[in-house]
Amino acid sequence: MTAPEPREAASSLQLCRIMRPDDANIMGNVHGGTILKMIEEAGCIIGTRHCNTLNGDRCMAALARVEKTEFLCPVFIGEVAHVTAEITHTSQHSLEVQVNVMAENILTGTKKLANKAALWYVPCSLKNVDKIMEVPPIKYASAEQAEEGRKRYEIQKTERLETKTRIKEVVSPPSHPEDRTKERHTVGFSQSSLIHLVGPSDCTLHDCVHGGVTMKLMDEVAGIVAARHCNTNIVTASVDAINFHRKIKKGCVVTVTGRLTFVSNKSMEIEVIVDASPLMEEDKGKYQAVSAFFTFISLDKYNRAVPVPPLKIEGEEEQRSFEEGNARYLHNKAKRLAAKESLQ
Amino acid sequence: MTAPEPREAASSLQLCRIMRPDDANIMGNVHGGTILKMIEEAGCIIGTRHCNTLNGDRCMAALARVEKTEFLCPVFIGEVAHVTAEITHTSQHSLEVQVNVMAENILTGTKKLANKAALWYVPCSLKNVDKIMEVPPIKYASAEQAEEGRKRYEIQKTERLETKTRIKEVVSPPSHPEDRTKERHTVGFSQSSLIHLVGPSDCTLHDCVHGGVTMKLMDEVAGIVAARHCNTNIVTASVDAINFHRKIKKGCVVTVTGRLTFVSNKSMEIEVIVDASPLMEEDKGKYQAVSAFFTFISLDKYNRAVPVPPLKIEGEEEQRSFEEGNARYLHNKAKRLAAKESLQ
Amino acid sequence: MTAPEPREAASSLQLCRIMRPDDANIMGNVHGGTILKMIEEAGCIIGTRHCNTLNGDRCMAALARVEKTEFLCPVFIGEVAHVTAEITHTSQHSLEVQVNVMAENILTGTKKLANKAALWYVPCSLKNVDKIMEVPPIKYASAEQAEEGRKRYEIQKTERLETKTRIKEVVSPPSHPEDRTKERHTVGFSQSSLIHLVGPSDCTLHDCVHGGVTMKLMDEVAGIVAARHCNTNIVTASVDAINFHRKIKKGCVVTVTGRLTFVSNKSMEIEVIVDASPLMEEDKGKYQAVSAFFTFISLDKYNRAVPVPPLKIEGEEEQRSFEEGNARYLHNKAKRLAAKESLQ
Repeated sequence: MTAPEPREAASSLQLCRIMRPDDANIMGNVHGGTILKMIEEAGCIIGTRHCNTLNGDRCMAALARVEKTEFLCPVFIGEVAHVTAEITHTSQHSLEVQVNVMAENILTGTKKLANKAALWYVPCSLKNVDKIMEVPPIKYASAEQAEEGRKRYEIQKTERLETKTRIKEVVSPPSHPEDRTKERHTVGFSQSSLIHLVGPSDCTLHDCVHGGVTMKLMDEVAGIVAARHCNTNIVTASVDAINFHRKIKKGCVVTVTGRLTFVSNKSMEIEVIVDASPLMEEDKGKYQAVSAFFTFISLDKYNRAVPVPPLKIEGEEEQRSFEEGNARYLHNKAKRLAAKESLQ
Repeated sequence: MTAPEPREAASSLQLCRIMRPDDANIMGNVHGGTILKMIEEAGCIIGTRHCNTLNGDRCMAALARVEKTEFLCPVFIGEVAHVTAEITHTSQHSLEVQVNVMAENILTGTKKLANKAALWYVPCSLKNVDKIMEVPPIKYASAEQAEEGRKRYEIQKTERLETKTRIKEVVSPPSHPEDRTKERHTVGFSQSSLIHLVGPSDCTLHDCVHGGVTMKLMDEVAGIVAARHCNTNIVTASVDAINFHRKIKKGCVVTVTGRLTFVSNKSMEIEVIVDASPLMEEDKGKYQAVSAFFTFISLDKYNRAVPVPPLKIEGEEEQRSFEEGNARYLHNKAKRLAAKESLQ
Repeated sequence: MTAPEPREAASSLQLCRIMRPDDANIMGNVHGGTILKMIEEAGCIIGTRHCNTLNGDRCMAALARVEKTEFLCPVFIGEVAHVTAEITHTSQHSLEVQVNVMAENILTGTKKLANKAALWYVPCSLKNVDKIMEVPPIKYASAEQAEEGRKRYEIQKTERLETKTRIKEVVSPPSHPEDRTKERHTVGFSQSSLIHLVGPSDCTLHDCVHGGVTMKLMDEVAGIVAARHCNTNIVTASVDAINFHRKIKKGCVVTVTGRLTFVSNKSMEIEVIVDASPLMEEDKGKYQAVSAFFTFISLDKYNRAVPVPPLKIEGEEEQRSFEEGNARYLHNKAKRLAAKESLQ
């Protein structure tokens, strides 16, 4: 077979929207989940467009992974969020989309970078959602660019495989707290779950849930956990890499559960697990669809970070989770410092 | 003080909306909760409008009670739901609104009566939500009409007082099931909870949750419980009277829990309990805001009712709930029969 | 007074979104109202951004008028609607935004022009919504371009003034149909109303309803009227110029009424009137906020236009409306023909 003709430069895509009251909490801070949903919509559009430039089955780009992303500054009601997406790497069966989110205050003209994210998509045939199609290659500006993309591809591939193995082990969902009369600042006190019945507007043309919809639900639960722990205005600070191993179909019930794993002086780490089960065939079994770590910070009325109450640990499992969370925290801190120094 | 001038005949109000995919389940049946929300919106508008025809503080009509209501026929996506509301009785501090819902298939022109409901509202001052305002009297067409309204008023007043007392007792919310590995067709197997963070669009000008929004969440949970029990297409058949004793404020987290109490050959009764807690002052305590019994039926693909799997009862508490449910079931059945006979 | 420094070239704005099931009717055709709402959002963002480039009060661009717009081709669920807005003229107190809507099928790569619209905005101070601010002038590419813009400005100004006078006359809203047992294909048979309680997400930072939200409601009612008349799949073909003379505030109830005024062989003209009244001060009087003529066509399953049942006229008023509608129809037809010929 001859290689497909490379496309004439991958175009970029821009979308924007005014932030409305329903996009934000009662202090006016736009939910991280709102931003994540817009990011994923942009990625899905540009990815699907690109993957259909070859002959063959029509396909939709399905979200496979989101790299760790940080919320660099708060966004407020009335501001315009601009999302710019660009395809930055292609492998045979996947593509990387990099997305920037700028928040513009259209009254003052000020703009700030609110978020940078990298997403990996896989083209799934519309005829058969389990058939992965081929991705047309993009042209790179330079050999270095191509090489750097290849490195990012290899790193995420390894990580995805690791988590895939992990998800296959029996990951016991955190047990539901029996009642809310638990002692304050324990893990059980703030643990929260929501259930959501997947509707048509949540879904792609495959009748599978958009990754962005899932991330929005995850952020919602994590925010409730964080607010329950510290009773203040809380905002999403960052989200660790999320791998989407299993699709969620229309008509499923998803259960999204969040619980605190680690608390530093000024941040809270919340593990969020998404279980899905087909509503009408529940006996076929519930499965874990996604999981991720969200980090939240607590803000005072001037939007400055304030200290968070320490977490009261109960039992060995919570202790282990706490230590793992602490390790992630220290690792990320070291990385941020290294990045800072390399800029000086 | 002289009596306020009675208004020139209580006007009626009509609203309509096309049913969209998100209003319905995946079989195309519009959720009972969608209809309940429209009914309450119409009641709130006509009630608020009426109560502001006198001088005095501006006020909003807050939902105090919905009488038992039956869903007479299924409504589908693409149909237009017409809701007609009329004020049918006024006491000094409350008013009754009767609402009819017609479903029109605009392609064939057929119309059917989908629902009839009666709602009681209380005017709360906008300045002070706890101050109940006076309701301007309506003119009745006849002395009999006035008298019948007075009787309905007395009956619901007694019932509201009774449930108020009951809610003050410690009504322990049903404990959460530890995991979903329970035996099928038990109460614990299908029990479900959702949490919802109250947003601006859920609220009235008082920043209190619209009664219709709460009822929609309740119907959503009840529907998930019913579908988990019988794994078929299920629809709301009726809702017992609901009393709204305590308001839910913006920024609260509501936890809505449903569990099966009784199953007859062709119907399921689900008790739904709504707890609310202010997210940032959770230590002030969670309180029970509303509770109600929803009845669901199971449908085959021709929308005909089919038998429901029997409920496996475990323990004394479940047995007691089952017997109480059975009593309500027999009572309602007898009432329907009597109503039928009186028509013959 | 010195002229304000002209801005460095008016930039354009692009927004896009995947069309979801709730954006469309049950045949998959995206509602005209969905498109109108996106168009207005783009206009509001670019207009507000531009008007705040001068010092002075912060302001929001409020929609004053939309020129006649035609829906050039149907848009479907799953397609991406791209909206591009550009400021094309400025007067001292108003600005013109031209908007293009492209519908892209991201599976096949085909793109089609779905809509072209021109909107006029007026900057209203955030401190005092009745204070009109000054608009910074844009630079024109040529003197002709400036001159053409000035002409468009004068024409719309005259028309706005005319309708302003008309709206002040007693425009009796069409009486509500007493019942739906009317004869088919009469005006009364298909006449429809909806009411909507204005919520926070409908509003700008002024707490006034976005023009796009109003247009979406108008299109929804017009669509119900059209479907009732011909019982087929109907789509919006065009909307005559709409003038927004009076703002609608948060907490208002809007009543949107549509009725057929004219039917040609293949199109239906529907007059839509929007009344608003503050829910709590209805005695201050309901006022007419907006009115417009929508034209719909009826489609078969291949999306081809099919004949429409003739309208049964009853009474002199309906006859007069019909003749006026016929005149508009002939006028538009002649204009289209002239435009076609000038291209040959």
